[in-house]
Amino acid sequence: MIVRAEAQVSLLYYYSPNSIALAAHIVLDEIGVDYTAVKVDFGQNEQQSDTFKAINPKGRVPALVTERGILTETPAILTYLAQIFPASALVPGDDPFLFAKIQEFNAYLCATVHVAHAHKNRGRRWVDDEAALAAIRQKVPESMESVCRLIEDGLLQGPWVMGERYTICDPYLFSVARWLEADGVDAHSRLPRIAEHRERMLARPTTARLMAECYV
Amino acid sequence: MIVRAEAQVSLLYYYSPNSIALAAHIVLDEIGVDYTAVKVDFGQNEQQSDTFKAINPKGRVPALVTERGILTETPAILTYLAQIFPASALVPGDDPFLFAKIQEFNAYLCATVHVAHAHKNRGRRWVDDEAALAAIRQKVPESMESVCRLIEDGLLQGPWVMGERYTICDPYLFSVARWLEADGVDAHSRLPRIAEHRERMLARPTTARLMAECYV
Repeated sequence: MIVRAEAQVSLLYYYSPNSIALAAHIVLDEIGVDYTAVKVDFGQNEQQSDTFKAINPKGRVPALVTERGILTETPAILTYLAQIFPASALVPGDDPFLFAKIQEFNAYLCATVHVAHAHKNRGRRWVDDEAALAAIRQKVPESMESVCRLIEDGLLQGPWVMGERYTICDPYLFSVARWLEADGVDAHSRLPRIAEHRERMLARPTTARLMAECYV
Repeated sequence: MIVRAEAQVSLLYYYSPNSIALAAHIVLDEIGVDYTAVKVDFGQNEQQSDTFKAINPKGRVPALVTERGILTETPAILTYLAQIFPASALVPGDDPFLFAKIQEFNAYLCATVHVAHAHKNRGRRWVDDEAALAAIRQKVPESMESVCRLIEDGLLQGPWVMGERYTICDPYLFSVARWLEADGVDAHSRLPRIAEHRERMLARPTTARLMAECYV
């Protein structure tokens, strides 16, 4: 985590490779805003350092530093970027219902799907006992598939989450869905529509480049 | 769950007494929109009935039925209600950063604080083993206090979450904070600013009335 003090940038984006930070990172890159990405080394537990906790007291990524202040939480950062770059059309400016459907989908990813995933490696948030941690980890393949089933069978309209329109839901779904195999779910056989959506996202130049440069 | 077919209402709101549905229920009531509240009886497992799952396949409350379709997820419903009633000034219409700070706070409640609470009675979402369930339940007082500490020590600006301005964050914080004692956290001694915010919310006529009528 090295930030050049002299860097004349309007936005700083803190991320770590295997994290959900990928979602808003894709949007940052696609809208073409000037930003600097700063890697937080979870291997060195840098997210718990005083330096980083001064940026995000939650000790998590992503965190977006703007001229107005710092923003955390993926659904909030995604919405912010879409709104300050309305030309991106990543959220509707004039349709509160569609806007709410986008927020609904992202809230489900944030509070249900990401949380199911977090029980694999972040179980200590909710339990101390080693046997219980193992029991929690064991259920992750089942619970991840179960919470993604709703997306597979309905929420994902296709070709994009909201149908023909590409929105902030798409990089977010991609960033969660890329964890499926590591979480014990074979997306291609079990969740083929989500797997297709993943391929569709990977065909976008920004996604492929960010995956290679920052999220390997 | 009895819905009168002849009811000429624009909005139907599905709730259950001890649930997070209280948050958007307060907003629905305060903005003065015409709506009918429909109680879903969790004691009878009604949230898992075919009738209710046709409304919300997640089998959870709240769910808001609008002319455009059904909305779920508290952060999405709160934002929708605030946006379709801009006179309520519950979210800013012209300040993407403040709007994002509101979404950030609500995402934290949704994905971190509510999730910590859910480990008390909803542990089966993430584990099957009985001993593990007990171990998870045991940590709830500690984890709830820990995740609320960030709100107590900083996010809650006072007198309202976003400072002088009352927003959709306030009924949401109230609805989560009322669980604290049942979750083993004495708010008055451990989280006094959150406890004061709770009292401030209870002093609003709508909150007190809804608590007495629907959330006893």
